[in-house]
Amino acid sequence: MSAVTKQTRNSISHAVAEVSALLGDRLSTSGAVREQHGNDLTWNIGAAPDAVAFVKNIEEIQSVVRICSKYDCPLIPFGTGTSLEGHFAAYQGGICLDVSQMQNIINVNADDLDCRVEAGVTRNALNTHLRDTGLFFPIDPGADASLGGMAATRASGTNAVRHGTMRDNVLSLTAVMPNGEIVRTASRAKKSSAGYDLTRLMVGSEGTLGVIAEVGLKLYGIPESILAGVCTFNTIDECCRATIMAIQMGLPIARIELVDHHNIKAINVYSKMKLEEKPTLFLEFHGTPVSTKEQAETFAEIAADCGGGKFNWAEKEEDRNTLWKARHDAFWATKAMMPDKERLSTDVCVPISRLAECVAETQADFEQHNLFGPIIGHVGDGNFHCILFCDRNDAQEVKKVNDACERLALRAIAMEGTCTGEHGIGVGKMKYLEAEHGAGLAVMRTIKKAIDPQNIMNPGKIIKL
Amino acid sequence: MSAVTKQTRNSISHAVAEVSALLGDRLSTSGAVREQHGNDLTWNIGAAPDAVAFVKNIEEIQSVVRICSKYDCPLIPFGTGTSLEGHFAAYQGGICLDVSQMQNIINVNADDLDCRVEAGVTRNALNTHLRDTGLFFPIDPGADASLGGMAATRASGTNAVRHGTMRDNVLSLTAVMPNGEIVRTASRAKKSSAGYDLTRLMVGSEGTLGVIAEVGLKLYGIPESILAGVCTFNTIDECCRATIMAIQMGLPIARIELVDHHNIKAINVYSKMKLEEKPTLFLEFHGTPVSTKEQAETFAEIAADCGGGKFNWAEKEEDRNTLWKARHDAFWATKAMMPDKERLSTDVCVPISRLAECVAETQADFEQHNLFGPIIGHVGDGNFHCILFCDRNDAQEVKKVNDACERLALRAIAMEGTCTGEHGIGVGKMKYLEAEHGAGLAVMRTIKKAIDPQNIMNPGKIIKL
Repeated sequence: MSAVTKQTRNSISHAVAEVSALLGDRLSTSGAVREQHGNDLTWNIGAAPDAVAFVKNIEEIQSVVRICSKYDCPLIPFGTGTSLEGHFAAYQGGICLDVSQMQNIINVNADDLDCRVEAGVTRNALNTHLRDTGLFFPIDPGADASLGGMAATRASGTNAVRHGTMRDNVLSLTAVMPNGEIVRTASRAKKSSAGYDLTRLMVGSEGTLGVIAEVGLKLYGIPESILAGVCTFNTIDECCRATIMAIQMGLPIARIELVDHHNIKAINVYSKMKLEEKPTLFLEFHGTPVSTKEQAETFAEIAADCGGGKFNWAEKEEDRNTLWKARHDAFWATKAMMPDKERLSTDVCVPISRLAECVAETQADFEQHNLFGPIIGHVGDGNFHCILFCDRNDAQEVKKVNDACERLALRAIAMEGTCTGEHGIGVGKMKYLEAEHGAGLAVMRTIKKAIDPQNIMNPGKIIKL
Repeated sequence: MSAVTKQTRNSISHAVAEVSALLGDRLSTSGAVREQHGNDLTWNIGAAPDAVAFVKNIEEIQSVVRICSKYDCPLIPFGTGTSLEGHFAAYQGGICLDVSQMQNIINVNADDLDCRVEAGVTRNALNTHLRDTGLFFPIDPGADASLGGMAATRASGTNAVRHGTMRDNVLSLTAVMPNGEIVRTASRAKKSSAGYDLTRLMVGSEGTLGVIAEVGLKLYGIPESILAGVCTFNTIDECCRATIMAIQMGLPIARIELVDHHNIKAINVYSKMKLEEKPTLFLEFHGTPVSTKEQAETFAEIAADCGGGKFNWAEKEEDRNTLWKARHDAFWATKAMMPDKERLSTDVCVPISRLAECVAETQADFEQHNLFGPIIGHVGDGNFHCILFCDRNDAQEVKKVNDACERLALRAIAMEGTCTGEHGIGVGKMKYLEAEHGAGLAVMRTIKKAIDPQNIMNPGKIIKL
C-alpha cells in the first residue's frame, strides 16, 4: 500500500461515495465481500479493494467508469473470481466492478452459429441455455468461469486443439473504455478486414484496457457421434510423438489430453477408477459414427506405432462422462493426495515438438529439488500445467516452488514458447514478459498509456508503467 | 498534393538522398517504377511515391524506417501490388518500401505445422517450397500475393470457411515499428495468454503501424482425399439455405463457393465449360476417402432438400483442377464479357443468415440502376464480391457505380456485417468506418497516434487523423 498516496486515498473515497449514491446497497464495503474480491484461489498475495460495485447493466458500468475516471480511482473488473495469477488483487485499492449479476443471454442466432451474452454469464450457464438448440460453446477452462472473464484472460481448455481459444471464438465484444465510451469492437460478420482488430486487442487484456460488458461468441453444432477413450504409453515422449503424427495427418481430434502417472494415481484413488498408472492420453473424436470410428482406428494404429498400449473406448455417454469427469477432477484428486499442503497451479506452452523435452526437463528439475509436481497437458497445443505442493508457512519451501516456477517459465520461453498458455499474466507472471516479448513490451506499454492515460483500469497488472 | 507543404517536400528529398546512399541502385526514382508503385490494378486514384526502396533484409527496413522517422518522411510498405483499395497510393509522397526481394523461407517446422518466411514470399512460392513436405498453406486470395501483404490486409479466400483468414493463420510476425524498433509479436507456441495480442494488432493494419518483415504461419497436412463438385440451384436463397444447414450440422466443408448465373455464363465462354447457367455452389471436401465420400453424400441430401439439382463430382485431380481454375478465372472471364469496360471489384461480408437477402437486394439495386455486376461469394463465411463494369471516362457511369458500392457497403453494415470481408480499407472504404465502428474508430485513432506519433507509416490510410 506504500505506493498509494494520501491524495489518492481521498480520491478513492470520493469515488466510492459517488458510486454508492448510484448503486445503493449494490455497492458493498463489507470486509468479507472486499476480501473475497481481492484474493484468488491461489497463493498469490491478494489485496482487498475499497469497495465492490455489483452492476446490473452496461449503463451502470459506464457510470462507474466515469466516476472512477473523474477521481483517478482504480477500477478492477471481476467475473467469478477463478483467476489463477492474482488478476484482481487491488494493490492500489479502488473499486472492484463485479459483473456476475449481468446474466442475460442477449441472443442466440442458430443460423449463424453465434450468440451474444452479458459478461457475467458463465460457460456452463450458456451451454445449459443452448441445450435445446443442438449447439454448444466449446471453450472449457477448469472453472465455470464467466465469459467476460474468459475473454479478458484469453482462456482455453481441453477443446482448444479443435476449436481454438477465446482468441478464436470471440466474434466481437462490447467494452466500456477508460474514458467511458462504449465500444463494440466488431460486427457479426464471420470475417472482416475493416480496420484494426479491436476484438483481439481486448481479448487477453485482463481488464487493463476497459471493462468487457458483452461478448459475441461462435457456437458449434453438437456432433452426431462422440467417441472417447484412453491409451497408456511408456513415456511422455511416446505420448507426444503419437500426438504429433496424428495432427500432421490432419486427424481432426476434438480433445487430446496428457495425464502423467502421478495424476493417474491420484485419479484412481479420488474417482475410484482402475486406470493403468502410466503416462496416458485421454482422447475424444467428434463426427459421424463412420468418421469417429475411422478416426479412432487411425489413432489406435498411430499409438501402437509409438509404443502405446491397448485402447479403452467409452462409447456410451455415461462412460464418456465418467472418463472426462475423472480428467477434470484431476485438480481435486491431486489435492486429496496431500490435503494439508497448499498448491500452486502454473502453465506454460511450447511448440509441440519441444513438449516432451520440456516436460522431461521439468520433471527432472522437480525431482532434483525434491518437489512434488504432477503434470497434465493439453498436448495437442503443447500446453501443460504443473501443480506444485507446498507448505505456505515454510518460507524455504515457498522459495523452492517459486524458483522452480521461474525456471519453468524461462525454460518454456527458451524453447520458443510462452510463460503462460491460458492462465494469463496478472501479477504472477509480469516478471517474465521482458524475456518473452523484448521490444514488444514497450509497444504494449504504449498502447496501455494511450488507451488508459490515467492508469485507472486494473493498474499494476500485465505491464509496469 | 495540396496537403504536402514545401517543408515536407524538402524533408522527403533529404530522406530519399539518405536512403539512396544506403541502398545504391536499389533506390529508384524512375518514373515508371514510381508509377507502378503508386497505382493499383483498380480504378482507385493512385499517386506515385517520390522513390521506391527495394530492401533485401530486415536490417535495411530498419535503416529506411529510421531515416524516414528522422525526416518525417511518409513510408509505404509494398508487397506485390495486388491490393484492391488503393492501399499504397502515395498521396503525401514519400518512399515506397518494396519487400518483394525478401524471398527467404526462413524455416519449416513440419512437426509443429508451422513455418517462418520473409514478407516478400508469395503464397504460391511457399506452397511450391512445401510440396515435398506433405504440408500446405491454405489462404488463397485471388492474386499470388506476398505473405507480408496478405498479413497486412488480413486476406482470406476460398479456404477460409475451413481454415480461417490471415487473422487465424499468422502465428507471429516480426515488424519494424515506426520508431525503428524490431518487434517480434509472439513466440512459436500455438496459444498464449501472455499480454496484448500484438500479432492480431499488426494483421490488418495495412502498413499504418509498422512494416511487416517476417511472418510465422500455420501449416496443414495435405488431405489424403479431396473431393470437389458443383451443384446448381434455382435461387441464391436455396444456395444459402443449403450452406447454412451443412455448417450447422458441423459438416467440415473445405470450400463452398457461390457463383451466380452471370459468372457461370462468363466461365462457360472463357473456360470452355458446359455448366448449367444457374446459381451454383462449387464445393470441396477434405479427409479420408471414407469421410469425404460421406460428407459429399450428406451434402447431396441437404442440397436436394433445398431444391438443388444433381451433383457433378470431380474426383480426379485433373478434373478438380479444371473446376477450380474455372472458378478462379471468373475474374478474367467476366472481363472478357465486356473487354472495353473497366471493372471495380468490391466485397462485403454479412452474417450468413442475411446473405441471400443482401445478395437479392444488391442484384435488384444493380438492375434498377442498369448496372452489370456479377456476384461471386465465399458463401460459408457470408462474404461476397461484386464486379461492376464501367467506362471510366463516363463521369455519370462512374458516379452510378460509386453510389451503388456505397449503398452495398451500408447495406452490409445495416445487416450486422462489414463493409469489407477481405479486401481491406485502404483509401477506398475509409468513408464507411464511422458507420461500421462508431466509437471504435476513436480507439483505432488513439492506437495509431500512440504507435506512430509522426504519422509516417502509410499516412492517410484506414483512419483520418
